[in-house]
Amino acid sequence: MYVILVYDIAEEENGTRRQRNIFKICKKYLIHIQNSVFEGDTNPSHLARMKKELMPWIDKNLDSVIIFKSREERWLTKEFYGKDESDVTSNFL
Amino acid sequence: MYVILVYDIAEEENGTRRQRNIFKICKKYLIHIQNSVFEGDTNPSHLARMKKELMPWIDKNLDSVIIFKSREERWLTKEFYGKDESDVTSNFL
Repeated sequence: MYVILVYDIAEEENGTRRQRNIFKICKKYLIHIQNSVFEGDTNPSHLARMKKELMPWIDKNLDSVIIFKSREERWLTKEFYGKDESDVTSNFL
Repeated sequence: MYVILVYDIAEEENGTRRQRNIFKICKKYLIHIQNSVFEGDTNPSHLARMKKELMPWIDKNLDSVIIFKSREERWLTKEFYGKDESDVTSNFL
């Protein structure tokens, strides 16, 4: 199963802390390809574990996390324009 | 063909202007679902036209635009966590 995860974490209510933790959890399970975008090949149990870790950090009213799932990576093609930010270790770490 | 477009536009070099124009172009062709994330059903000629309009605004060294394509929407499932930002008209307009 191939997954693309995008998040938009609000700054309010200690958002920086939420963002830092959400970033770290996503990075544990997926590949960081752009500012708040991750992708990767995973399986249902890995995905369930990642979501379980993420939930406490997502503010239901302020934040937005979207997970796209495709059964096979080959059903998805990817085009890059501009610079390729894949897995550039950002200042969160 | 189903498309997910994510962008990360740097603030440097008049980034706000680039971001405003990239946002408007994406919004013309796709659905705005989160901060810098768009999706939608489209066709090759529409996609080519969108990319042609986008290119002049993407700074090759500073910005990143990624387009994921799936031949069919049904090959992609989507999960929302937190608030649903789909097509909330943002302050760019």
